[in-house]
Amino acid sequence: MIKKRLSKLRALMARQGLDAMLITLPANRRYLSGFSPDDTQLGESSGALLIAPAAAVLLTDFRYRLTAQAQAPCFEVVVYSRGLAHSLGVLLNELRVKRLGFEAEALLFGQHQRLSEALPGVSWQPTLGFVSELRKFKDASEIKATEASLALMEAVLAQVMAGPLVGRSEREVALEIVRRIEDAGGEGPAFPPIVASGPNAAEPHAEPGPRVIAHGETVLFDVGAKVDGYCSDISRTIVAGGRAADDEQFRRVYATVRQAQLEALDGILPGMLGHEADAIARRIIDRAGFKGKFGHSLGHGVGLATHEAPSLGPNSDDMLEEGMVFTIEPGIYLSGWGGVRLEVMAVMEATGCRLLGASEGFLQP
Amino acid sequence: MIKKRLSKLRALMARQGLDAMLITLPANRRYLSGFSPDDTQLGESSGALLIAPAAAVLLTDFRYRLTAQAQAPCFEVVVYSRGLAHSLGVLLNELRVKRLGFEAEALLFGQHQRLSEALPGVSWQPTLGFVSELRKFKDASEIKATEASLALMEAVLAQVMAGPLVGRSEREVALEIVRRIEDAGGEGPAFPPIVASGPNAAEPHAEPGPRVIAHGETVLFDVGAKVDGYCSDISRTIVAGGRAADDEQFRRVYATVRQAQLEALDGILPGMLGHEADAIARRIIDRAGFKGKFGHSLGHGVGLATHEAPSLGPNSDDMLEEGMVFTIEPGIYLSGWGGVRLEVMAVMEATGCRLLGASEGFLQP
Repeated sequence: MIKKRLSKLRALMARQGLDAMLITLPANRRYLSGFSPDDTQLGESSGALLIAPAAAVLLTDFRYRLTAQAQAPCFEVVVYSRGLAHSLGVLLNELRVKRLGFEAEALLFGQHQRLSEALPGVSWQPTLGFVSELRKFKDASEIKATEASLALMEAVLAQVMAGPLVGRSEREVALEIVRRIEDAGGEGPAFPPIVASGPNAAEPHAEPGPRVIAHGETVLFDVGAKVDGYCSDISRTIVAGGRAADDEQFRRVYATVRQAQLEALDGILPGMLGHEADAIARRIIDRAGFKGKFGHSLGHGVGLATHEAPSLGPNSDDMLEEGMVFTIEPGIYLSGWGGVRLEVMAVMEATGCRLLGASEGFLQP
Repeated sequence: MIKKRLSKLRALMARQGLDAMLITLPANRRYLSGFSPDDTQLGESSGALLIAPAAAVLLTDFRYRLTAQAQAPCFEVVVYSRGLAHSLGVLLNELRVKRLGFEAEALLFGQHQRLSEALPGVSWQPTLGFVSELRKFKDASEIKATEASLALMEAVLAQVMAGPLVGRSEREVALEIVRRIEDAGGEGPAFPPIVASGPNAAEPHAEPGPRVIAHGETVLFDVGAKVDGYCSDISRTIVAGGRAADDEQFRRVYATVRQAQLEALDGILPGMLGHEADAIARRIIDRAGFKGKFGHSLGHGVGLATHEAPSLGPNSDDMLEEGMVFTIEPGIYLSGWGGVRLEVMAVMEATGCRLLGASEGFLQP
């Protein structure tokens, strides 16, 4: 699998006239080598891959030597003690690299400046989305890992939604979700869970806070797990303590979002562009009188990262193709009142979207 | 407090001839404005600050509008719906900015390329460590928050070290630490806890795994909490199930590391450079016959980030001055055997280092 990925990357490199490629994005490192550590802090790398036609080297520091050797058997591990620039310089020289590709989306301006000044004999060529191009097409093992992640997340969320919510704080419920993910054997959450109650749900990325959930309030969950590196990402909106049969606004908003989601699931086809997919759902929301209240994109790719290519947004020209895995997550947000978001994951197949995971968990108000 | 920080930054800007400064590092954003959200993923910003002599603007997107308004009262909040570049362009024009400083350590190469191409009327000036220069000097409120974070972390670690360890996996113990931090009211861990047992402790950044801790094995803990945004960072190494009176190697390694730490605490004085501080501890470890076995720096600043200025490492010329808070964490790592690291936090005062937190928790083997 690793070898297949490397040979695809090498073909891309050859097409761009690159003698070697420096990989610094943690998810790309993992995808191409198996080396799993994340970067601990912005600007603090846990390693880099140098890939040339006849070489595959994982450069890391003393802290990760054992992990690198265990996780990346297809790579030669070089531990740098005098900094990345020094070891990289030796390698580039050995491999006679003249044109070195680097990831513009994963190297800081200052890092590029420092490295290119330290190694002036090489022409530093920015690339954008090079490995993303490979990552956006999922193979069977990746779809399997995604489904495992999704099954775990759906089971956990079902337990939490069924358990008591009224009288507990958003933060308490968010912590419960994280712990259940861990206890169920997930690597951990894919991102900090969102639990937004009442008016807080009007903020699509509200941080779970001390607000206590009251009976009859909407609660918006946006949660994901990580299993074998693969992320899940789902959203549900429910009413704490029971159905909202008496809240006309909620019923209308919910039904609109759900309809937008179902029509998108049904209408998105291979070959469509991201903005066309987005428009299917947005049109329904706009026509129901909620124009301007769906302030984010319809969806995004999911894989080793929670957010990756393709984008299903109003400005996206990404083509949706077979083998891509993405979310479909329309929402309506009304300041002061709250919001509803419903998010599922789907894989693009030859005939259209196949829903991943269970289709349950949607209240029919 | 915010106003004082802004006026210090503006003085630095004036000295460099900058008309405005764009702040994109999450910890710097929080330090200067109060806006707390982290970036969710590399390349996905939750906002940026634009600071000019007579303006302070927080640019963010739809998802964070309410949070921004609540947390950053000294800032005008601008919500960008057409992307950062567009709203930034309007502001730079209004403010007649010619020379714009940006953070080379917090803007990706690709982001800089995109922004500077979109806004060619402005001269983009890279700066390095501009806000770090302010952040490395802690005021009384920051030291208080750090002490609260440290007290919480020390109490949690003491409970975990006193509880049963033998027969449990590293991962299980690491999860317990995170949960106790959260239950004690911390924002969460400052970084994923390290719990490394037996030979795993030879890897300074080992990831806690399924390995089960056995009686008489060393267990290395490196843990930190976050309270009001401020990080703690401590390490202890103990023997699971009791003292290691019969392990001569452990006694020798431990005593050496502890002596290195105590001499560093005693010997580090204001005005000293980072590499001089590091040398105090390294000399002791080298002379005890462990040359080359202390593969990381003696310490680093701690504040809103776990790792920040100053650096106390072999190559650091950072001057250690009054008001700085940093770790002192010598270690010895022997491949196949394991390792010992002992880490405390200290604040630099006029006469030398003052240990923060309790000095207990150190086994005397």
